[in-house]
Amino acid sequence: MAAKNAVRGSGMELRKDPITQSWVIQEYEQVSWPDLGACPLCPGQEALCPPNVYEYPYGNPNWQVRVIPHLRPIYRIEGNAERRGQGLYDKMRALGAHEVVVEHPDHSLSLSQQSDEHAAQVLRAYVSRISDLKKDRRFRYVTVFRNQGALAGQDLEHPHSQITATPFIPRRVGYELRSAQRYFELKDRCLFCDIVQQEMNQKVRTVEWDDLFLAFCPFASRVPYETWLLPLDHHGAFEEHLVSWDQQLRLARFLKSVLRRLESIAPAYHLVLHTCPNLNAKFEKAGNWQTVSEDYHWHFEILPVVAATSKSYSLKEVYYNSLLPEVAAEELRSVAVAV
Amino acid sequence: MAAKNAVRGSGMELRKDPITQSWVIQEYEQVSWPDLGACPLCPGQEALCPPNVYEYPYGNPNWQVRVIPHLRPIYRIEGNAERRGQGLYDKMRALGAHEVVVEHPDHSLSLSQQSDEHAAQVLRAYVSRISDLKKDRRFRYVTVFRNQGALAGQDLEHPHSQITATPFIPRRVGYELRSAQRYFELKDRCLFCDIVQQEMNQKVRTVEWDDLFLAFCPFASRVPYETWLLPLDHHGAFEEHLVSWDQQLRLARFLKSVLRRLESIAPAYHLVLHTCPNLNAKFEKAGNWQTVSEDYHWHFEILPVVAATSKSYSLKEVYYNSLLPEVAAEELRSVAVAV
Repeated sequence: MAAKNAVRGSGMELRKDPITQSWVIQEYEQVSWPDLGACPLCPGQEALCPPNVYEYPYGNPNWQVRVIPHLRPIYRIEGNAERRGQGLYDKMRALGAHEVVVEHPDHSLSLSQQSDEHAAQVLRAYVSRISDLKKDRRFRYVTVFRNQGALAGQDLEHPHSQITATPFIPRRVGYELRSAQRYFELKDRCLFCDIVQQEMNQKVRTVEWDDLFLAFCPFASRVPYETWLLPLDHHGAFEEHLVSWDQQLRLARFLKSVLRRLESIAPAYHLVLHTCPNLNAKFEKAGNWQTVSEDYHWHFEILPVVAATSKSYSLKEVYYNSLLPEVAAEELRSVAVAV
Repeated sequence: MAAKNAVRGSGMELRKDPITQSWVIQEYEQVSWPDLGACPLCPGQEALCPPNVYEYPYGNPNWQVRVIPHLRPIYRIEGNAERRGQGLYDKMRALGAHEVVVEHPDHSLSLSQQSDEHAAQVLRAYVSRISDLKKDRRFRYVTVFRNQGALAGQDLEHPHSQITATPFIPRRVGYELRSAQRYFELKDRCLFCDIVQQEMNQKVRTVEWDDLFLAFCPFASRVPYETWLLPLDHHGAFEEHLVSWDQQLRLARFLKSVLRRLESIAPAYHLVLHTCPNLNAKFEKAGNWQTVSEDYHWHFEILPVVAATSKSYSLKEVYYNSLLPEVAAEELRSVAVAV
């Protein structure tokens, strides 16, 4: 208990780069993992963790899926952002939420190996937590992501996803919002809907599709086998779209199939859900994000990690991809998937 | 000779991400290193390389510094960008220049270990090549960078820097230009000049300074020991500022001292020169970059690489720095540097 308190009391702050306007998480006091004998995410070890913020089935000690605050959180939920200046520099507290979705009681059953019904319960947990966190007007954005495999920075072995809620919009999502908004102003159409249509017409980068979802390798893929998954119809927010059990089940089946294709080729990956920012956030009201549900389109971005390589600076400034997405898609299509 | 031709004929193209508007270098045909028995950058092996584009002393086979086209170029100098659309996607040829600055005849004498006069000749080579490449109106930007150490992706052992000239402005430089311009509009002052002033007043992140240059750890450092080096007075373009031998010598001495401090702590680093974009470029005329020489301020960014670690997705989207720049600067200041 002492160890746990020490960790939860330690310090991070957010500093804004005055030049690129991106936020940097600055650790000012070392944060380390609490001393854990057993896997803290396994059944029977619940006492090692903070109390559940979500569990399924509710109130049942034999949980199937549960969500807890992260044991080594980057962001902390208490208080206000305390935005303040220091001359021309800006900083704020690392206010936010950082949660862990424990996807299954089984320590070794990864998302793609779970039953359709179980994987759908994981998606339902995402929906519930995103909706809940978006009620908090201090948070501008909620991110859900999975690091699968050590090469992708997976830190606990037990199958899990992570959720963060932040008082700022992450860089990449911000760029996406800006482009999507500009495109909508120009064309009165959603950029992502137009991409879906072009991909479905060309069928050279498509990996898999049905009547609800499409998976494809994007035209300007950042890494080999990068794959995006999105609904064919226009839906800005994941948590507003995926409300019915039937849809959760359909997405679970589709996502599992796409992940199995990727896992047969890449040992590790990042899976990231991009959804519409928090329109309830205090901050949004003043900005021009009101239209985002119209011009944004939720999607999963899956970024395989092929090997831990040292990068030349040139590859940091400009993405460099050694495999054509058209070739990657062809390979991924031809994987035999038994779901 | 056959091998070299095969390499130089192979293919890259640039694809624009319609969502983030960044360019991705797409390899569509495998590019590999030519079969090299000896170090191609050592004296006596000049026949393994394309002809010099710069040499010092000029016309002397006993060169001290020389610049050659890269043996495995990302960008190629012939022809036009051939910008074209494919539905809503955009692409162009990987037009550009990619050069190698061979910094010294000695295979094992890194920049920081060279004499002041020799290091100044390396800086003079940068000045000459940037000025020359900026005459080419197809290029919007010229980057100079060094990868020092295997962890930083250094691919040839022989001490060298790289220069690229590109038909687009690299992402990070673009963000910098936008912020600097906005700041100038607001304050009628250069953002970087104001940063210099605040750092010199606070003296908590300063590493080293004299009457011409300042080195400091930026407020929102992306990595531990990140260090910037810039002139105290306002100068937009490196190649227009560093024209006299006296200034080249002064900067060489200063840069060597900063590098020695960093090398005593980090095994590898990226050194990147950020200078004003090419105001001669055809493309710029139409844009609003005319004011950049007023609101931009050349600087070196030095990014130490402490270890090759696998990164969690959360650390990719938002920079995470485990060491306070105030602490890093204190450590760097206290390094005993014998120059």
